[in-house]
Amino acid sequence: MNEKLNPDLAIWGAGSGLETPCLVIESSVVDANIAAMSEVAKRNGVQLRPHAKTHKLPEMAARQIAAGAAGITVAKISEAEVMAEGGITDIFVAYPLVAASKIERAVRLSQAGVRLIVGADSLEGAKRISDAAVREGVKLEIRLEIETGLRRTGVRIDDAVQLAKQIAALDGIRLTGIYTYRGAMYNGTPTLDLRAAGHEEGLIMASVATVLRSEGLAIQDVSVGSTPTAAYAAEVGGVTEIRPGTYIYQDRMQAAFGVSTIDDCAGAVMATVISRPSDDLIVIDGGSKTFATDVQPGTSPFYLQGFGHIVGAPDAVLERMTEEHGMIRVRTDAVYRVGDVIRIIPNHICSTVNLHSFVYIADAAGQLRKAAVAARGMLE
Amino acid sequence: MNEKLNPDLAIWGAGSGLETPCLVIESSVVDANIAAMSEVAKRNGVQLRPHAKTHKLPEMAARQIAAGAAGITVAKISEAEVMAEGGITDIFVAYPLVAASKIERAVRLSQAGVRLIVGADSLEGAKRISDAAVREGVKLEIRLEIETGLRRTGVRIDDAVQLAKQIAALDGIRLTGIYTYRGAMYNGTPTLDLRAAGHEEGLIMASVATVLRSEGLAIQDVSVGSTPTAAYAAEVGGVTEIRPGTYIYQDRMQAAFGVSTIDDCAGAVMATVISRPSDDLIVIDGGSKTFATDVQPGTSPFYLQGFGHIVGAPDAVLERMTEEHGMIRVRTDAVYRVGDVIRIIPNHICSTVNLHSFVYIADAAGQLRKAAVAARGMLE
Repeated sequence: MNEKLNPDLAIWGAGSGLETPCLVIESSVVDANIAAMSEVAKRNGVQLRPHAKTHKLPEMAARQIAAGAAGITVAKISEAEVMAEGGITDIFVAYPLVAASKIERAVRLSQAGVRLIVGADSLEGAKRISDAAVREGVKLEIRLEIETGLRRTGVRIDDAVQLAKQIAALDGIRLTGIYTYRGAMYNGTPTLDLRAAGHEEGLIMASVATVLRSEGLAIQDVSVGSTPTAAYAAEVGGVTEIRPGTYIYQDRMQAAFGVSTIDDCAGAVMATVISRPSDDLIVIDGGSKTFATDVQPGTSPFYLQGFGHIVGAPDAVLERMTEEHGMIRVRTDAVYRVGDVIRIIPNHICSTVNLHSFVYIADAAGQLRKAAVAARGMLE
Repeated sequence: MNEKLNPDLAIWGAGSGLETPCLVIESSVVDANIAAMSEVAKRNGVQLRPHAKTHKLPEMAARQIAAGAAGITVAKISEAEVMAEGGITDIFVAYPLVAASKIERAVRLSQAGVRLIVGADSLEGAKRISDAAVREGVKLEIRLEIETGLRRTGVRIDDAVQLAKQIAALDGIRLTGIYTYRGAMYNGTPTLDLRAAGHEEGLIMASVATVLRSEGLAIQDVSVGSTPTAAYAAEVGGVTEIRPGTYIYQDRMQAAFGVSTIDDCAGAVMATVISRPSDDLIVIDGGSKTFATDVQPGTSPFYLQGFGHIVGAPDAVLERMTEEHGMIRVRTDAVYRVGDVIRIIPNHICSTVNLHSFVYIADAAGQLRKAAVAARGMLE
């Protein structure tokens, strides 16, 4: 792959050499995004522990750590294994581990020298982790997940003291922190004040930590999440760590929030026009296998039109998709021809990356390099 | 993997040995579904050329061919390469090829001994195929795609005669047939009469073929698609081939159509209950990375509740998902506990298979075997 990427070019001619559809990541934009979030963490004196779910690439995790991140966050033990294999040594599995086999894998990673922190939100789960740790003679760090409004996993605040005490009394583990993913902006509030949401998230967690400490529990880490709120949550005294993920690539959803601009989006799908059935319609060679469908057009809180932003033609709309076809409504005088290659910034980059076995990473000179998305599809 | 699958068991205990979430395919159900569609084709004297997009597995394609299918259908040249690598020798790429590199890859497959048929819907695309074929000294079979209402790719019927004549005049290729994917049932008609839709699809295509033949064009193959309409389209005189895909596994969407029952669904996700935050809510370890989101709950024409059918608890609803979490509303007296493994039949099996790097295939005795989904994520 010796093709050069010219990000200013909205339409590429046929024969650019790229096999489409594919996902291209612009390295210089990545570095700028990494630097900006590192600066947020540094300014506020908190740790940055980025969620690797966005890139799923050990080399990107390494860049984040080189820029000051304390370690990384993942959701699944299989992702932790891939990251450890790729040289990452400080990993938080921010997910309640309950299955025996997964706990065993966590123990093995810990034995292999990785600083592994795992999540828990039930006594049952924590007991299983404790039993395995005692059996294997290791000491695992545990953080208790707190439910702060997403109605997902996490212990209710009312029950946190009791559960924390029970967990802290178990052998083989150390309860060192609490964490939450509030996701306030994804719950359907269209006019969400991100600053207020970030502050609220931070204040809730700092308060829970204060209560737990007053009960004698040694809570060191108070960890909060999300790209839209991280900068505000980090300002709250008592918050010690932020876990944003999307910021490394940004996406159309974040641009809709005003968290980034479209120019800050590092990832774009390259697709070929395969048909122009009518003046106002072009069909591209990527559909729902290429662009994620978890953020649906027209739905709260984004009300995005279509499944992506068409670079160079913001009024064009990727209106419909089947698995391998994308139908884009265009101006009747638009110059697209069969064979043209166009660039599209997806609504949600994390789930879009998960559809791609590899990405092309473009360096500052536009030179492309193919990289396998090593932690793609790691479900376990 | 020596675990046995008991399909009647709604809730598995922890420690079943399966790493969840994962997708399990029941082999005996697959064989029954394959046999039923083969019988449809045989009864109507048409060829069956199943779309491999559902299973993405050469071994399943081989089973379909062993049961009488003439060959297989794919959408992308990369899928054709994987299937050829897996021993499949008769492949239709039902997709307009326009990029030079993809056409070269098609030529190479043809040179390697695969009977390769490719799609075209523009003179530009056909010319490029012709040029490459002449240059390499091969003869490629081409089918012309006809637009019959999906507003996707395909030449409009009014323009079909002119384009077919132009394509037939090109060297290096033989225009041997026409094909369409009408997808009438996916265009939002909630009370669709599948019999009428299938007959209409067949009649339109048979008529186009008649007109083309009257203009001196040697149209042999008249190929129509889709699991819901295949049995009806096959009844129409002049239709020579059906290309259903989903039927091999079936899914909740087809069950909603009445095309299959839930018991005919061969694929189910196994997931572990990781949290029960309240009596009416359980959280499982699979979300939008595990279950496809292209068929959204509550939308036309299916109006399905939630993202899957919970086996053994049809009133439970997989209401919300984030990437790694599935939130299921359950009866407050339901017996789910943290660690239980449950089975869920996804709304759309094809796009769900695309999320899984491997599946477990359960034989009639329930014995599980891990199989890599070789053509997963083949976008090019």
